[in-house]
Amino acid sequence: MPIIKRIDHVAMVVEDIEGALAFWRDALGLSLELLQEVPREKSAIAFLPVSGVEIELVQPTSADSGIAKYLEKRGPGMHHICLEVDDISAMLAQLKEKDVQLIHEEPVIGDGGRKYAFIHPKAAFGVLMELYELP
Amino acid sequence: MPIIKRIDHVAMVVEDIEGALAFWRDALGLSLELLQEVPREKSAIAFLPVSGVEIELVQPTSADSGIAKYLEKRGPGMHHICLEVDDISAMLAQLKEKDVQLIHEEPVIGDGGRKYAFIHPKAAFGVLMELYELP
Repeated sequence: MPIIKRIDHVAMVVEDIEGALAFWRDALGLSLELLQEVPREKSAIAFLPVSGVEIELVQPTSADSGIAKYLEKRGPGMHHICLEVDDISAMLAQLKEKDVQLIHEEPVIGDGGRKYAFIHPKAAFGVLMELYELP
Repeated sequence: MPIIKRIDHVAMVVEDIEGALAFWRDALGLSLELLQEVPREKSAIAFLPVSGVEIELVQPTSADSGIAKYLEKRGPGMHHICLEVDDISAMLAQLKEKDVQLIHEEPVIGDGGRKYAFIHPKAAFGVLMELYELP
């Protein structure tokens, strides 16, 4: 049986990442671990760790990205939750067996060999959920 | 300086907690730690721990509750994130000094002497955030 090991991150979509850091970093006092643009994903991201779980801020940098469209439709706020699993292929197989609708039926290989897949929010009762497995 | 110690829980609002458990417990394989009605808050709640952070499911049990109105307006999905702080009064003072809009300007005393307060989502860039301090 595949196992969910931990929550890796909770992602928030924002219109202005610098403005949002005035809250998350300067007012709450969290440490900013990373702030960078990700041109491939047409976004800028920031990571602020809280005892092993990352708060991720995501700002679209182009109006034609998926995250920009989400922001336009839903407004800023919590966007997705990412859970680390020990065996993503086995977890996706288990989910398919239970008729859980997936965005990615097979793991996608990301940076550094990290495998990930998204579950459809309809299947997760409105929650956009990412699963990932470290190499 | 007050410190954020950890993420305590991430709460998801659902229309049907039993239906949602078919996903969170039966398909993902998370353990159900607690399932109960909370008449005072006109809701039913479930807690499913993931390595020290709780996934909380909240279902309104009355159409006139705040959570029912949220569900009607926004649909099911991620609702709020709760951070544990070492000193909630000091954190609220720090936030007020930074002009962060609060729902509770002073800590509310909850069950078992637990103190909590909510930050206004406008101040947290669309995120509803709860802060709490253990007695």
